[in-house]
Amino acid sequence: MTKEGGRDISATSPANALPMKDLTPSEEIRSRLAKFQKKMAEKGLDLVLIIQNVDLFYFSGTLQKGYLFIPAEGDACLFVQKNYERAIHETPLKCVRLESFKELPALVQDHQFNGNRVGMELDVIPVSLFYRIKTLFKNWEILDVSSEIKEVRSIKSDFEIEQIHMSGRIVDEVFSQARQYIREGVTELAVDGILTSIGRSHGHQGFLRMRGLNQEMMNIHVLSGESGSTHSFCDTPLSGSGLSSAIAQGSSRRRILRDQPIVIDYGGGYNGYVTDETRTFVIGRLRDPLLRAYEVALDITGEMESSVRPGDSPMHIYERALEKAGKAGFGENFMGHGEGKVAFVGHGLGLEINEWPILGRGYRKPLQAGNVFAFEPKFIFPGEGAVGIELDYVVKENGVERITSFPTELIVL
Amino acid sequence: MTKEGGRDISATSPANALPMKDLTPSEEIRSRLAKFQKKMAEKGLDLVLIIQNVDLFYFSGTLQKGYLFIPAEGDACLFVQKNYERAIHETPLKCVRLESFKELPALVQDHQFNGNRVGMELDVIPVSLFYRIKTLFKNWEILDVSSEIKEVRSIKSDFEIEQIHMSGRIVDEVFSQARQYIREGVTELAVDGILTSIGRSHGHQGFLRMRGLNQEMMNIHVLSGESGSTHSFCDTPLSGSGLSSAIAQGSSRRRILRDQPIVIDYGGGYNGYVTDETRTFVIGRLRDPLLRAYEVALDITGEMESSVRPGDSPMHIYERALEKAGKAGFGENFMGHGEGKVAFVGHGLGLEINEWPILGRGYRKPLQAGNVFAFEPKFIFPGEGAVGIELDYVVKENGVERITSFPTELIVL
Repeated sequence: MTKEGGRDISATSPANALPMKDLTPSEEIRSRLAKFQKKMAEKGLDLVLIIQNVDLFYFSGTLQKGYLFIPAEGDACLFVQKNYERAIHETPLKCVRLESFKELPALVQDHQFNGNRVGMELDVIPVSLFYRIKTLFKNWEILDVSSEIKEVRSIKSDFEIEQIHMSGRIVDEVFSQARQYIREGVTELAVDGILTSIGRSHGHQGFLRMRGLNQEMMNIHVLSGESGSTHSFCDTPLSGSGLSSAIAQGSSRRRILRDQPIVIDYGGGYNGYVTDETRTFVIGRLRDPLLRAYEVALDITGEMESSVRPGDSPMHIYERALEKAGKAGFGENFMGHGEGKVAFVGHGLGLEINEWPILGRGYRKPLQAGNVFAFEPKFIFPGEGAVGIELDYVVKENGVERITSFPTELIVL
Repeated sequence: MTKEGGRDISATSPANALPMKDLTPSEEIRSRLAKFQKKMAEKGLDLVLIIQNVDLFYFSGTLQKGYLFIPAEGDACLFVQKNYERAIHETPLKCVRLESFKELPALVQDHQFNGNRVGMELDVIPVSLFYRIKTLFKNWEILDVSSEIKEVRSIKSDFEIEQIHMSGRIVDEVFSQARQYIREGVTELAVDGILTSIGRSHGHQGFLRMRGLNQEMMNIHVLSGESGSTHSFCDTPLSGSGLSSAIAQGSSRRRILRDQPIVIDYGGGYNGYVTDETRTFVIGRLRDPLLRAYEVALDITGEMESSVRPGDSPMHIYERALEKAGKAGFGENFMGHGEGKVAFVGHGLGLEINEWPILGRGYRKPLQAGNVFAFEPKFIFPGEGAVGIELDYVVKENGVERITSFPTELIVL
């Protein structure tokens, strides 16, 4: 029923199983766990219980309905409700079948996961599940461990950076093909559908993940003219109207017109890893002040690229961008307008689209080598639309390096 | 800053605002609230605080970052953090701007939302948000009100059924076009991409919602041959391998072959409302026992269609299907195989894909007119694939009525 260390190659592979090469390497999983256990020790935790699917995948290499127990020292164990057969094929960790949630206390005792200071992902675990767990484990003192998880996840390994590059290749492919489909009179929605399909056929995983209640992220936004200046509930500089008040973001039935900015924000997704870039297109001619604002977006990006180093404050990077936008006379338009304004210019990327670091107000923890982020200076002009760019970077010892290769210029059709 | 009753037509419409005709009618919102307030009274609640985006949209007609307070008697009020401008265009309810979460207690007092028995959506609200709320409202006794919400939402109004029919038209369109793209040697992924694009260009909202932590639902699964018998963490009879262990469901790079079943599960989405249907295709010839199993799936569907009435037990409908599958000799294959088996044959549909009623083990609350559900008898043959059908129904006073019109026969190409 169980196994110790190493994937169970002898186990019957599930039908249509994924090839081993696509799986997270064993040493990668062990390194993630070791880093996390160090943070657990600093916080004085005896045990951590991981339930959220993305964290569970990050620490085990498999995405199952299950409960991952990580002790302060020693081996983690995955109690799997569904699907055990796939779990043992995908994770190097010990797996134990779990028929019912109620068996957990006995299993935890069997595995000598002792101690009562227990960490959980309290930023995402719903209250009723939390109560059920407290009923099973009456002596647990439960602490939030979501910051420690986010910190470990914010430093990407070489394996992760490879996956992010693969994700970026989908973005390059989609932007390379976009110009063929952007035509006067075509709806945003039609372009959205075609580009989504192209991304998918090039291996896009299907959807993007965003951490937290009510966080929804579409794979693509195609926003032309004033769609670019329509804001929403989303904590993003652009969002569009979407097709209805029920979705409230994304491409609409608006037809693309000449001489109006067309902003395409597209997120790649490969083996869980998300990329997120934006380009601005125009059929005909982009006029000032929008054309000038696009140049300022490129300037801001260029300055960031040439100056940012590990140790820099993410908030300071944001403030420098804000200052540059203000000096160019576009302070009011930068990163939204009026109620739509957001207080950041970039965000971390990984298995979720809202990872750390956030390059924005209040985020002071210094950048570190291995951080991956999207940088997105954008300008919104009410009633006219938006212009801007978004590029993804990995932080290296001596600066930042782009993930994708598609050019950054305004694309004139 | 605020308004009483009726949408604020005088307010400046946000750029690219949606036309009024697509918004949830005022009388619809008032009727939903009145039904819910009746349930609140039964439970002895003074107040309910709604935060989850789908519930907030259901009860207000607008999807915002905000807090909807529903008193036991009198008018509900939406405190809007972002986006106020869109909120007042979309909801008939009173809206109040909220700069910061911490202002809530003062605003609640201003609006005389008294009493301390307060309902919240504890099935989805994360623990850390819950703690923040408890810190602001120290005297609140907080009870879970998710069952009451699900009950009200499980009975669809005429307006909702119209939206669901519009959603079903996207499903009809996608299935009508599917046969053109299913070819020997084409990958599941390529068919997935094209059909997703067709759905989107016909007004698909972009993604489907599923309630709860870790619940992820793709718009489409194209599963050929043994992909149909690959199970996963998903609580669904079929899931496929997906492109990687990070997603673990959905279409794969497998090429479609002759004489193998191809199962396409596609979900429509219109104005928030989800539909969910499945058809089986084959290039060449489907052999027994799979062909025979498909006929049994149609038999089970036919019996359900002709017999089900309001008042029936959802569990009983499931047991009858199970019995019929067993008598035909396909008990082991019905609704999954081995670890992949699920204990239901249908599920409610609405703004989320896992609404009430669930036609499965343990669900005894009688069907009511206005329930909408997907019915999906499916058979899984390990290593060979899956066959089956899924159709959507609305429960009427005298029986059930289909939502879509695309034929139910096995599609031979």
